[in-house]
Amino acid sequence: MRRTLFTQDHEDFRLLVRDYLAREVVPVYEQWREAGLVPRELFTALGELGIIGTSIPEEYGGGGQHDYRFNVVIQEETARANVTLGGLRTHLDVVVPYFLGLANEEQRGRWFPGLASGELYSAIAMSEPGTGSDLAGIATAAARDGDHYVLNGAKTFITGGYHADLVIVAARTSTDPDNRRAGLTLLVVEKGMPGFTVGRKLDKLGLTVQDTVELSFVDVRVPVANILGEEGVAFSYLGRNLAQERLAIAVGAVAQTRAAIDQTIGYVRDRKVFGQPVSQFQNTKFELAAMSADLEAAQALLDAAISALAEGELSPVDAAKTKLFCTETQGRVVDRCLQLHGGYGYILEYPIARLYADARVSRIYGGTSEVLKTIISKSLGL
Amino acid sequence: MRRTLFTQDHEDFRLLVRDYLAREVVPVYEQWREAGLVPRELFTALGELGIIGTSIPEEYGGGGQHDYRFNVVIQEETARANVTLGGLRTHLDVVVPYFLGLANEEQRGRWFPGLASGELYSAIAMSEPGTGSDLAGIATAAARDGDHYVLNGAKTFITGGYHADLVIVAARTSTDPDNRRAGLTLLVVEKGMPGFTVGRKLDKLGLTVQDTVELSFVDVRVPVANILGEEGVAFSYLGRNLAQERLAIAVGAVAQTRAAIDQTIGYVRDRKVFGQPVSQFQNTKFELAAMSADLEAAQALLDAAISALAEGELSPVDAAKTKLFCTETQGRVVDRCLQLHGGYGYILEYPIARLYADARVSRIYGGTSEVLKTIISKSLGL
Amino acid sequence: MRRTLFTQDHEDFRLLVRDYLAREVVPVYEQWREAGLVPRELFTALGELGIIGTSIPEEYGGGGQHDYRFNVVIQEETARANVTLGGLRTHLDVVVPYFLGLANEEQRGRWFPGLASGELYSAIAMSEPGTGSDLAGIATAAARDGDHYVLNGAKTFITGGYHADLVIVAARTSTDPDNRRAGLTLLVVEKGMPGFTVGRKLDKLGLTVQDTVELSFVDVRVPVANILGEEGVAFSYLGRNLAQERLAIAVGAVAQTRAAIDQTIGYVRDRKVFGQPVSQFQNTKFELAAMSADLEAAQALLDAAISALAEGELSPVDAAKTKLFCTETQGRVVDRCLQLHGGYGYILEYPIARLYADARVSRIYGGTSEVLKTIISKSLGL
Amino acid sequence: MRRTLFTQDHEDFRLLVRDYLAREVVPVYEQWREAGLVPRELFTALGELGIIGTSIPEEYGGGGQHDYRFNVVIQEETARANVTLGGLRTHLDVVVPYFLGLANEEQRGRWFPGLASGELYSAIAMSEPGTGSDLAGIATAAARDGDHYVLNGAKTFITGGYHADLVIVAARTSTDPDNRRAGLTLLVVEKGMPGFTVGRKLDKLGLTVQDTVELSFVDVRVPVANILGEEGVAFSYLGRNLAQERLAIAVGAVAQTRAAIDQTIGYVRDRKVFGQPVSQFQNTKFELAAMSADLEAAQALLDAAISALAEGELSPVDAAKTKLFCTETQGRVVDRCLQLHGGYGYILEYPIARLYADARVSRIYGGTSEVLKTIISKSLGL
Repeated sequence: MRRTLFTQDHEDFRLLVRDYLAREVVPVYEQWREAGLVPRELFTALGELGIIGTSIPEEYGGGGQHDYRFNVVIQEETARANVTLGGLRTHLDVVVPYFLGLANEEQRGRWFPGLASGELYSAIAMSEPGTGSDLAGIATAAARDGDHYVLNGAKTFITGGYHADLVIVAARTSTDPDNRRAGLTLLVVEKGMPGFTVGRKLDKLGLTVQDTVELSFVDVRVPVANILGEEGVAFSYLGRNLAQERLAIAVGAVAQTRAAIDQTIGYVRDRKVFGQPVSQFQNTKFELAAMSADLEAAQALLDAAISALAEGELSPVDAAKTKLFCTETQGRVVDRCLQLHGGYGYILEYPIARLYADARVSRIYGGTSEVLKTIISKSLGL
Repeated sequence: MRRTLFTQDHEDFRLLVRDYLAREVVPVYEQWREAGLVPRELFTALGELGIIGTSIPEEYGGGGQHDYRFNVVIQEETARANVTLGGLRTHLDVVVPYFLGLANEEQRGRWFPGLASGELYSAIAMSEPGTGSDLAGIATAAARDGDHYVLNGAKTFITGGYHADLVIVAARTSTDPDNRRAGLTLLVVEKGMPGFTVGRKLDKLGLTVQDTVELSFVDVRVPVANILGEEGVAFSYLGRNLAQERLAIAVGAVAQTRAAIDQTIGYVRDRKVFGQPVSQFQNTKFELAAMSADLEAAQALLDAAISALAEGELSPVDAAKTKLFCTETQGRVVDRCLQLHGGYGYILEYPIARLYADARVSRIYGGTSEVLKTIISKSLGL
Repeated sequence: MRRTLFTQDHEDFRLLVRDYLAREVVPVYEQWREAGLVPRELFTALGELGIIGTSIPEEYGGGGQHDYRFNVVIQEETARANVTLGGLRTHLDVVVPYFLGLANEEQRGRWFPGLASGELYSAIAMSEPGTGSDLAGIATAAARDGDHYVLNGAKTFITGGYHADLVIVAARTSTDPDNRRAGLTLLVVEKGMPGFTVGRKLDKLGLTVQDTVELSFVDVRVPVANILGEEGVAFSYLGRNLAQERLAIAVGAVAQTRAAIDQTIGYVRDRKVFGQPVSQFQNTKFELAAMSADLEAAQALLDAAISALAEGELSPVDAAKTKLFCTETQGRVVDRCLQLHGGYGYILEYPIARLYADARVSRIYGGTSEVLKTIISKSLGL
Repeated sequence: MRRTLFTQDHEDFRLLVRDYLAREVVPVYEQWREAGLVPRELFTALGELGIIGTSIPEEYGGGGQHDYRFNVVIQEETARANVTLGGLRTHLDVVVPYFLGLANEEQRGRWFPGLASGELYSAIAMSEPGTGSDLAGIATAAARDGDHYVLNGAKTFITGGYHADLVIVAARTSTDPDNRRAGLTLLVVEKGMPGFTVGRKLDKLGLTVQDTVELSFVDVRVPVANILGEEGVAFSYLGRNLAQERLAIAVGAVAQTRAAIDQTIGYVRDRKVFGQPVSQFQNTKFELAAMSADLEAAQALLDAAISALAEGELSPVDAAKTKLFCTETQGRVVDRCLQLHGGYGYILEYPIARLYADARVSRIYGGTSEVLKTIISKSLGL
C-alpha cells in the first residue's frame, strides 16, 4: 500500500544514503564481517555527508532537523543494501537523544560539533552482569570526591562500546533503602580516562559487525562537569525516550523483514529444483503471499506509530505494541524465508542467513516480548 | 493508537446506530437467535433512520453519500453490541454497489427509492452447487424468449436470500467454447416471480441469524428490462467491486476481534478461579496483551486500506492482503479469547462462543485464504 | 506406524462396535442431531451386545475385563463413523470407575447389574455455577438427618445429566475453616427422588447430541446407604481417576483428528475447483502431509500413555502432557481440515463442521490447557 | 514417560560415552569451537573405546552389533553434554552403512579394520553446486580409462569432507537421455589421490565444529577396485538407507530439544529478574510445560520409529513423518527456550545460543520439510 510518511526531503536523503552504501559499504562489507567491526572512519564519512548529524542543531554544524524519519530512512536503506552499520542505530536512535535532551549549554558546545561531524561516537551503559532490564538494581557506583566522581563497576551488553568516544554511564551516586529508583546519575565517561577499559567483544549469534562489549570502570575519575542532567534522578531519564527506542527496533525489524522477503523472491525465481524454478511451487507462492500480507500489516502499524511520534503522540504502550508485533513478525517471516532457501539458507554468505541470525535479538533487546506484554497488559487494566 | 479515519459526520452516525441497536436490537436479540432470522421490519426501521440508504442518491430519498465509512461504522457498532444484523452487510457492501454501478435510469427510478427506504432488500446469487469460487463455471442458464429471459438453475450459499425482494442472478445467456468467461449476464429476479423458490436455510456452524439459503429457478420469466448492465459481459462486473467486498469482510473481522477482546477483558476481571480473578494470572495478561498488539496491527492495516478505498486507490491485491491478514488474525484471537473463558466459552449464551462460531467463515467466504494467496503471489511476480 | 496396543480380543470387539454403529446409529444419526439427544434405548442396546459393561465384574453380568482399551476402541469407532454417542464416554470412562472403585458390597449388588446391562446410566456432578475446576469450593450441602442426608444445591455442566438414573453428587457434609478440602462426600442421587430436578440443557457450540445440563437439588432426601466411599474424604477420590479421565479425552481427540483427516482426504479428492481436484494443489498436499505427521505423533504419545495405564504406570503428569498435546493438536488440525473444505466446511451437514464445533471443548473440559500446564510445570520443579 | 527402547547393553554403552565426553571433550570443547573443527584424534580415541565401530563385524575388529540404538545413545549423550562431535553422526549413520551394505570381500578387508578402529574416517559426496536434492541431475563425471576411472567435477555441502580418508563420490559413468536416474556410480576416492582437493570450509550459521566443505576433482584417477556396488545403478543405492538417515536427524533433533529444555530449566531457576527467579513467572512455567509436552510427543514418535527400524519395519514414509515432526518441534522449542534466556540467549557462550544456531539446519538437510511433505502426501494418495 502507498506509504504517506515521507516528504521530498526524506526521499532526497534516502538517495544520498542509498548511494553512499552502494559505493562505499557494499563492496567492502565482507571485510567488515570478517573483522567483526565497522571501521571507525565510517562515522566521520557519514558526518561529512550530513547523514549522521541530522538531529544536531544547525549552530553546532548539524542538520537541525528534529525529525525521526531521517533515522527511519537510514535503517530502511541499510536493510535494503543487506548491510548493517554496527552500532550506528543505537548511537543515533538511543544515545544522541540523551545528549539532545539533557546536555547543558557548556556540554552542547563541547560535544555537539563532534556528534554532528561524526568525530564523536557514543554509547550508553546501563545493563550490568546480573541485572538486565531491572535498572533499579544498578550497582555501578560513583562517589563524589571534590570536582570529580570516582566511578567503579562493570557494564555489559554495551552496543558501540568499542568505538565509543563518549559513554553515558548510569551509576549510583546515593542509596535510598526506601526507594530503589532514587540515587542514579548519568556520567559521561570519555575514551582514554584512566581506569576505563573496554573488555572483550561478546561472541553473539548475529549482528556480527556490531561491537557489543563489556566495560570496566576502576577508580575512573569523571569530572562533575560530565554529569548529564541532574544528579540522582537518572531513573526518570532512562524511560523518557523509551517509546522512540522501541520504535527504532521495530523500524529495523520491518526493514529487515522486507529485505528478507525481497531476497527470497529473487532467490526462488533463480533457483531450480527438479527442473522447475522454486517460485513455481504453490507452497513457495503461498508462503511468500502470506508473509507479504504480514509485512504489510507490520508496515501499516509501524507507519502509524512513526506518524504518532512525529506528532508527539506516541504512547509507551503503543510503542510497546508496535515493537512486539513487528519483531514477532520478523521472527516468523525470516524463518520461513530461510527455509525457502534450502541448504543455502544456512550459509552465512547468503544474506538470508545473516538476517536470520540478526533477527533473533529483536524480540529480546530494548525490552523483551515478555516485558512488553507486561506493559501492554497494564494498559488494559489487567 | 488514535484513528484518523472518521469525521464528525461519521461519529454522529455512529451514535445514531449505537443508540438504535441498544434500544431496538439488543433486548430482543435472543429471539432473533432462536428464530434463526432477523425480522423483515428491521430493514424498514433502519431505512426510516437513514441508516440503510446512505449511499443511495438523494434524489431517490437516500443519503447521497458515496462514502464507505458509514458502512464501516455500522459493522463496528453491531460488533460492539454483540449482535449481527443478518445479511445486512452483504446487502449494503456487496449487492447495493451493483445497483449503484450498473442500474440504468429506468431501473434507478424503479428500485432506488425502495433501497433507500429499506422497502427493498437485495441479494446476489453467484455460487452454484459444485462451482464455488469458479464463476466461469456458472451453469444457471437464461434463454431469451421475446421480452423475457427464461431462467433455469440452482444457486447456493445465498446470503439474505430468504428476505430478498430483489435477487441479482448471474446466469449464462450464451456459451463460447473458447472463452469460459464470456456469456454471463446479471438478471434481477423479483420475489414472487413464478418458478422462483427459496429452498432450505443452510444449517451453518455460526452466523445463526443470517439467512443463507439455496435458491431454485424453474422456467422463471424475467423481463429483459431486468438485465443489470450489458448482456454477456457480467464476468467483468463480478470482480469490479471485489476490493470493497473483501475489505468489508476485513472490517467485520477486525470489529469482531475487538469485541472478542473487550468481552474477554470483562470476563477475566469478573471471573475468579482458585480465589483469584482470572485477570491476575500472568498467562491471561500475556495472552490479552499479545492479542491487543495483533488487533492494533490489523486495525492499522485496515484503516490504511479504508483510506485508500476512499481515495479510489485500493488495489485488489491490497484488499486481498488486508482480508487475509485481518481474518487470520480474527481466527487466532477469537480462539484464544474463548479459551480464557473456560467452560463458559463453549456455551452459546456467551457472546464469545458466537463470535467463535461466526469467525470461522471469515477465512472462507469472499475468497478463501488460499484464493487470496494466489492473487497476492501473482502480484509478487511468482 | 504399526500400532502394538491391541490384541485379537480388542479387534473382535472393534468389529462388533463398528457393525452396530453402521447398522443402528449412522442411519438415524441425523434425527439424534435434531433431537439434540441420543435415545435412552441406545444404552440398553449396547448392554445387550456387551459393549457397555466390559469393565463390570462377570458375577454381575459384565465382561469382567479390567482393560481400558475396550473403551478406546469404542471412541475410535464412533469417531470413525462420524457419530457421537452423547455422554456415553463420560459414563464409561469417568463415572463407572467411581462405582467400581468405591461401591460397597451392598451397592455392587444393587447397581452393578444395571450398569452391566445398560439399564442404569450414570453421571457425576461436581461443577457448580461459580466454581469450575476449584472443587474445594463446592457449596452444595448435605445435612445428616437420621438415615438420610438432606441435599441442597445446584450443579452445572453435567454431562449425561438428562438421561442419568444415578448421579454421583459431590456435596459438603461438613466445613473445616482450616482445610477447604475436608468435608466433601459423594452421594448417589437417583432419578425420581423428590426435589431433584434436571434443568435446562445448555446450548453448546458443539457436542449437540450430548446432554449437558444443570441439576437442582432442593431438600432431596438421600439415604445414607447411598454414600459412595467414606464420608468427608471425597476430595481425595475426585483426583484418583484423573489420569484415566484425561487420557480418555485425549483418546477422543486423536480419534476425531484422524476422522477429520480421513474426511478431508476424501473431500479434496472428489471436489474440483478451477477444473482440478483440490487434492492436486500442492498446498492441499502439504497441509495434509503435515497434519498426518502431527497425528502420528499424537497417536504415538497416546498409545504409549495407554500402555502405561494398562501397566498401572500412567502418572497424572504424563496424562496431563498427553491430554495437552493431543487436544492442542486436534484444535489445529481440525481447523486446517475445515479450511480445505471451503464453504462446505461451514455447513453442519458436513462432518468436518461438527468435528470442528465438537473439538473446541477438548482443550477446556477435564482440565483446561492452562490447568494442565500448571500441573506439568510443577513436575519440572518450577 | 518411561522409555522401553534400551537394554542393559545400551545403558552400559551410554555410561562409557558419557564418561568419555565428560573427561575428554567437555573440558576442551571451547578450543574446538574456536578451531571450527574437531581434532582428527577424536576418532581413533573413540575407536579404542569401541564407540566408533559398533556396527563393523567382529572379524574386522568391530563390535559386530547390527543395532542402530548404539548410535542413538551417542547422539543423546553428546546433546546431553552440550557438545557436538563434528561430522561423526554423518560418518556413523549415513556413510558407514554404505560400506556395510555394498563393500565386496576385498574392500571389506581393505577398509573395515580402519573403520572399526577410527583410523579411517569417511564422507559421502552427493550434492553439487546447483543440484541440491535432485540427485538425478548429478554432473560429476567418471570416464573409464583401463583399470581406472578419471573423475572430474565438484561437490558441495560435504559433511566431514575435511577429515575424511575415504569419500564416496556419486558420479555419472554414463548418460541415458531417456532415464536421468541411470548411469550413476559410487566411487571411493581416497585422501591424497592426485587431483582431489578439499576446498573452503563453508561458513555456516551453526554446527561450527562440523567441517562442511566443497570438494574438487580434477582428473582424479580412481581404481576400478574402488567402485562401491555395481556400476551405473547408484541411484537406487542413494535411497536405500534414507529411512535411517532421516531417523538419525530426528534422533539428534529430539536429543537437542531435550538438552535445550534442561538447560532452560536450569537457567530460569538461577536467574532473577525484578527480584524473582524467572522460573516463578507463570509465563515461564507455561512455556516450559508446553514444550515438555511437545518433547514427550516427539520422543514417543521417535522411539516408536526406532523400534520399527530395529524390527526392519520402518517405512520411508514413517521416517519422513518422524523427521518432519521432530525437527519442526525442535525449531519451535529451541526458539522459545532461547527467548526465556533473554539477552544471554544471544551470546554463543551459552549452550542455548548454539543449540538455536545448530537447530536451523535440521529442517533442511537430509530432506527439507517440503521434500518430506511431498513424500508423505503421496502415501496419502494425494
